[in-house]
Amino acid sequence: MTNVSVGIDIGGTNTVMGVVNAQAEILAESSFPTAKYNDFEQYVSAMAESIKNMLKNLSFEYNLQGIGVGVPNGNYYEGTIEQAPNLPWKGKLKLADELLKHFDCKVVVTNDAKAAAIGEMVYGGAKGMKNFAMVTLGTGLGSGIVVNGQIVYGHDGFAGELGHTLAVPGGRVCNCGRKGCLETYVSATGIKRTVYELLCTTNLPSKMRDVPFNKLTSKDIYDYAMEGDQLALKAFDITTDILGRKIADLATIISPEAVFIFGGLANAKELIIDNTKKYLEQYLLPIYRNKIKVLPSALLGTNIAVLGASALVA
Amino acid sequence: MTNVSVGIDIGGTNTVMGVVNAQAEILAESSFPTAKYNDFEQYVSAMAESIKNMLKNLSFEYNLQGIGVGVPNGNYYEGTIEQAPNLPWKGKLKLADELLKHFDCKVVVTNDAKAAAIGEMVYGGAKGMKNFAMVTLGTGLGSGIVVNGQIVYGHDGFAGELGHTLAVPGGRVCNCGRKGCLETYVSATGIKRTVYELLCTTNLPSKMRDVPFNKLTSKDIYDYAMEGDQLALKAFDITTDILGRKIADLATIISPEAVFIFGGLANAKELIIDNTKKYLEQYLLPIYRNKIKVLPSALLGTNIAVLGASALVA
Repeated sequence: MTNVSVGIDIGGTNTVMGVVNAQAEILAESSFPTAKYNDFEQYVSAMAESIKNMLKNLSFEYNLQGIGVGVPNGNYYEGTIEQAPNLPWKGKLKLADELLKHFDCKVVVTNDAKAAAIGEMVYGGAKGMKNFAMVTLGTGLGSGIVVNGQIVYGHDGFAGELGHTLAVPGGRVCNCGRKGCLETYVSATGIKRTVYELLCTTNLPSKMRDVPFNKLTSKDIYDYAMEGDQLALKAFDITTDILGRKIADLATIISPEAVFIFGGLANAKELIIDNTKKYLEQYLLPIYRNKIKVLPSALLGTNIAVLGASALVA
Repeated sequence: MTNVSVGIDIGGTNTVMGVVNAQAEILAESSFPTAKYNDFEQYVSAMAESIKNMLKNLSFEYNLQGIGVGVPNGNYYEGTIEQAPNLPWKGKLKLADELLKHFDCKVVVTNDAKAAAIGEMVYGGAKGMKNFAMVTLGTGLGSGIVVNGQIVYGHDGFAGELGHTLAVPGGRVCNCGRKGCLETYVSATGIKRTVYELLCTTNLPSKMRDVPFNKLTSKDIYDYAMEGDQLALKAFDITTDILGRKIADLATIISPEAVFIFGGLANAKELIIDNTKKYLEQYLLPIYRNKIKVLPSALLGTNIAVLGASALVA
């Protein structure tokens, strides 16, 4: 009898489900477009059916330890999704209760970046660390914070929104309704916004002057930077300056051993990781200098949220 | 046999020692000027003698549970004081080891603002709270942060330096060697600096135009504000705007149930507490709004650090 757990990563685009064993091997995986179901109950039923199919096809006897879910605005305390701006269903959704209609096992819900932090802690570079932060760079900037070996959920379950700390007072409009949030500068979309700001505020030559806003990706910006495009390099410099400054602020609160960065941009070793470390050291209170590691996630290229969500119940 | 513990509050000016019982009553108290001894060993010997005298004079049989110390730059993990800018002795001082030469009991060292947070949690308004922050407004701005019912010490013991988060990039020179730290704006000295900035940048009439910098205290600014002095009122407004904004940032990290404010300025109910709450709500990410209390410490007027330090070993 092999112990397995199920990890689910609910994103605005896709819902990915995996069956994971104690060695962090994803034994089976399936996915479907999140927006396929307008009705939340139908959505959960489809998810349950897909999971049951994966389990049925396992070639060995298993013991299902539980189901862990990472989802934007997931509330660990209540097992709910609350007011997630990028998901099709509105209000407060009782995700754990719905799943329990289909399964007789432990069900735990958390937010996707916290699931990534748990993945890093259980399977990745943060093994053995008691105090660290995970920063996920995607469309937005997510974060999961670990203090004394525990994920920080806070009073209401919604702690760890580093992406919505204020980076620039009165700055760029954010989807949260405010201005100047960190994720409007530091994320795949943030660096793109910085490129277009530099197109206006500088006369730096750049191939990106021929690319429309809706066509440019952060991967393109990286490729241009690697070709020596001055404007792309400047955009990375500004991005890491702001990220380093805000991690320095975070350090004064939790004094972490390391900050891990996950997401496509984290592959840009010199441009993101090394530069962020450089700026972090410049901004840090002296007592913290040369103590805090800035590292790419050791699980880059994996579905860290599926792994982390599965670890919630393993 | 009554259980007692000793709490010590080492400040730049005075060292205060108290014998405390389980009901948070300070049964005996003594103090001497911290700078009286240039030699650290002699200083600790004097402290030990003073404690032994207090204990000897107790009118009942007691069991000493331990000695807790709150001190700037106190390191909980190592029992040391490290590089405290406002104390007479330099380097890394083995405070716990020195005290253990005089006493055969548990000795625990922490920083003074963390001791205040423990005092609030054990004896004050934070009883039963698992996630909150304590902000102490004095010469600087200290903080103690509690997550999942535990003080946040971080990887190196020095977490919780909210006063050294960046409030204004390129702003006022701070004693830490950097610029724009929160405590250069929000503290007894911070609000005074704001008054002198307003003397230059505005033409607001104010009695403070006749007061030299070195004579003005934060208590004076409060008194002028209560008399309706427009410039003093503006200074409080700016102070609480910045504090509210930085607490909003802190909320995204730890999502606290409450933020407590301790120190002379915390007595200014409308001017500090209510205004900070108002600005906090304006800056908060919507998901946290109307959830976070801003409260004066319930232990205003007591030696919260002595109480909190004693609770470390009770």
